[in-house]
Amino acid sequence: MTDLPRHMSVEAFRLAGYATIDWIADYYERIESLPVQPKIEPGEIYSRLPDEPPLEGEAFSAILADLDRVILPGLMHWQSPNFFGYFPANASAPSILGDVVSSGIGVQGMLWQTSPACTELESRVLDWLVEMLNLPGKFKISTGCGGGVIHDTASSATLCALLAARERASGYTAREHGIKNDLVAYCSEEAHSSMEKAMSIAGLGSHKLRKIPTDQKLAMSPSLLTEAIGRDRAVGLKPFFVCGTVGTTSSLAIDPIEEIGQVCGRHKLWLHVDAAMIGTAALCPEFRYVHAGLEFADSYCFNPHKWMLTNFDCDCFYVADREPLNRALSVMPEYLRNEVTEKGTAIDYRDWQIPLGRRFRALKLWFVIRSYGVLGLQAFVRQHVAWAEKFECWINDDPAFELVMPRSLNLLCFRRLGSDDDNRALLQRLNQDGQVFLTHTVIDGRYCLRLCIAQTNTEFRHIERAWQLIQEVADQ
Amino acid sequence: MTDLPRHMSVEAFRLAGYATIDWIADYYERIESLPVQPKIEPGEIYSRLPDEPPLEGEAFSAILADLDRVILPGLMHWQSPNFFGYFPANASAPSILGDVVSSGIGVQGMLWQTSPACTELESRVLDWLVEMLNLPGKFKISTGCGGGVIHDTASSATLCALLAARERASGYTAREHGIKNDLVAYCSEEAHSSMEKAMSIAGLGSHKLRKIPTDQKLAMSPSLLTEAIGRDRAVGLKPFFVCGTVGTTSSLAIDPIEEIGQVCGRHKLWLHVDAAMIGTAALCPEFRYVHAGLEFADSYCFNPHKWMLTNFDCDCFYVADREPLNRALSVMPEYLRNEVTEKGTAIDYRDWQIPLGRRFRALKLWFVIRSYGVLGLQAFVRQHVAWAEKFECWINDDPAFELVMPRSLNLLCFRRLGSDDDNRALLQRLNQDGQVFLTHTVIDGRYCLRLCIAQTNTEFRHIERAWQLIQEVADQ
Repeated sequence: MTDLPRHMSVEAFRLAGYATIDWIADYYERIESLPVQPKIEPGEIYSRLPDEPPLEGEAFSAILADLDRVILPGLMHWQSPNFFGYFPANASAPSILGDVVSSGIGVQGMLWQTSPACTELESRVLDWLVEMLNLPGKFKISTGCGGGVIHDTASSATLCALLAARERASGYTAREHGIKNDLVAYCSEEAHSSMEKAMSIAGLGSHKLRKIPTDQKLAMSPSLLTEAIGRDRAVGLKPFFVCGTVGTTSSLAIDPIEEIGQVCGRHKLWLHVDAAMIGTAALCPEFRYVHAGLEFADSYCFNPHKWMLTNFDCDCFYVADREPLNRALSVMPEYLRNEVTEKGTAIDYRDWQIPLGRRFRALKLWFVIRSYGVLGLQAFVRQHVAWAEKFECWINDDPAFELVMPRSLNLLCFRRLGSDDDNRALLQRLNQDGQVFLTHTVIDGRYCLRLCIAQTNTEFRHIERAWQLIQEVADQ
Repeated sequence: MTDLPRHMSVEAFRLAGYATIDWIADYYERIESLPVQPKIEPGEIYSRLPDEPPLEGEAFSAILADLDRVILPGLMHWQSPNFFGYFPANASAPSILGDVVSSGIGVQGMLWQTSPACTELESRVLDWLVEMLNLPGKFKISTGCGGGVIHDTASSATLCALLAARERASGYTAREHGIKNDLVAYCSEEAHSSMEKAMSIAGLGSHKLRKIPTDQKLAMSPSLLTEAIGRDRAVGLKPFFVCGTVGTTSSLAIDPIEEIGQVCGRHKLWLHVDAAMIGTAALCPEFRYVHAGLEFADSYCFNPHKWMLTNFDCDCFYVADREPLNRALSVMPEYLRNEVTEKGTAIDYRDWQIPLGRRFRALKLWFVIRSYGVLGLQAFVRQHVAWAEKFECWINDDPAFELVMPRSLNLLCFRRLGSDDDNRALLQRLNQDGQVFLTHTVIDGRYCLRLCIAQTNTEFRHIERAWQLIQEVADQ
């Protein structure tokens, strides 16, 4: 029959679903043995796929089989216990299954009206996280004029923070009348590239982003920030936004948010704090120093999809006052009008983000928090920091290696004594071998290896093995 | 033990996974009997959830049970066969399972390097869609300087199109130096609200978006477009961008892309075509008229997550030339540098979108196309249009009702003879009853009911029942 679409019956879905779960379970059973980085040339996977789409539908088993045949050889295995690159994008069993439910029920949470539970579970879980990380109470949706929302990534959160600040700084005219070319923003030299991208997108231009020099710890210098603001004011520009980073991508450096916050307070600048990677550390009271000064922030974000066992994508974005954000981003076409929105008695998360539509992402976060409990999540973070401490000792004890920066939480930036090229070659050999995957960074002009201990499936033995491999390959 | 995180074993994941699949299958078995729109007040779901997150982890079964107890009563059932509101957000079994694989393997596709298969499957599937919809060949990544990418929503695609056009119009200076306040864009009065939002985000201001009046078919008037461009030029403004809509949200009106394209050609304006809902219709040769003139477009998008059986989120965005897009959006921090990117031998989709990170969304699209085949997808679209034709006849045959606009493909805008308030009350009673869900729009100042036939699980009997209910409730 070609004149009726061939939908899978519910019973067939059940069986295909079990097979898919089995495929994932089998993948996790062998993931440790797979080379973390694929050995593949550009174009190889593309050319293994047929030129033409199939005319007739195919059996589900054929598609699953092609996952092994075509897709797996072209994957970097982010969930491998031997993955220490970039920052992780942690999945976990409860998170995967929460996401499965989201895909399954397929609701659209653009308005409260279009699925109240999608909005209200999100508000509740984000309120829980305020408690769990001991964030300032002003970020709770239930108690004030602020609140939290789930974004895809910290890039989007940073952009929205910038747009909210731009709206406020323009006296709420930018949205309708556009911007004047006089607004200036600030971050450190080590801040994430998304800050530059956000400045471009917002029409302000990346050149109006002042990258403030950092101290020896690669943290923003508040006095140089103050000077830069003064210079800009003196030539008639209008400083309006500072992005403080808590855990830079390169080295997990931590900007002094309290002092930066005081500068922002004096100059009436919006302070956004980007804690994408290490916000999660604040689950543990002993690591809450990372958030010192956060009471000064107008907005804040961190990514459960990095270190909190929640699969990509899931960034939690908070504002102290939702009005500038909503005024910067709200739209109300006729076909979306509804009583609840007009009464203003509920949150419409559409007005908190760039896109209109939204997935039910709160489910996976809810599944994770309930499955692990606060204590389980704390234990997860603690063990990584403890292992990173061990690793730090190993580096210090080996005269052939040096730490380029003191360890920050679970990240190590180190190098073999020798040239940049030696270290570049070392990294390449390590990653080509496939038993381990690390990335690099450049600190003070020196190329170094960068090892982040945060993957869900990593155990202590993987850390030991990684160090052993690094030493072996360096000796060759 | 509270000092170790309690990860689920692979075997436990397998069982919890089966249970989750069963929960979804059971949900689909009863979905038809659930009221489509929940009966719930703002705050009800939030207050049913505990104030505090759990300290200790909970059993997976307890969480699944709470889906029924807490979440289900607060859902709008977008996958119900009785859902005719807004546009659908279609899921299907293969799509759900493709998404499950994506959640399960948890790779990050920001760069080719970070998972080559994630990038290359996406390029291949988007090339397939160029053939399947008979789009201009310039949108194929394999044959020219253009190409396609998956975005979350058409809102994001439209924003990126606008940013690429802004970059080109500014002589490639906007990204670094910001914008001058002189750029003007155009769309019809009926275009999607995301166009206004994109203008605000880009710093151009929603007032610099000219909403061109439409004709009786609610399609943009090319002559009024030309006049508006002339007026703006005359006062020293710089027209740069037109968004043509193929299938407006309110009534599926179709702008005359060919004539608009000629205007754009004459004035060197970027033409973006938003076919979010009805791009999918072009699967069928008999409906390809919707894309007439598309060869004039610089960029184009449609949403498989609306009418092509692919669960939210999945928008396909194409550009004829990727250079302006990439130049508007690329960043290259040190820690992302890699050989392949530097050689430029592969696509890095990071430079095609707002966020940095990206999910492996191509999997679900691949699963859908392979499971249904081109013929199956065509049949899916055809049956909806055929049913909408029937529905149109029923409305025409009932003297108590009138069509407010001629049917466009699978959308009907109609009203009961009587006042706007009568129709508003009719819609409210219908939706409160829960057996069916429709939304409204306003056309030529008249309130009308809006019924979109596109849900995956809808059969002809649901259409018949919906019409019967509408008649019954109207008679009460």
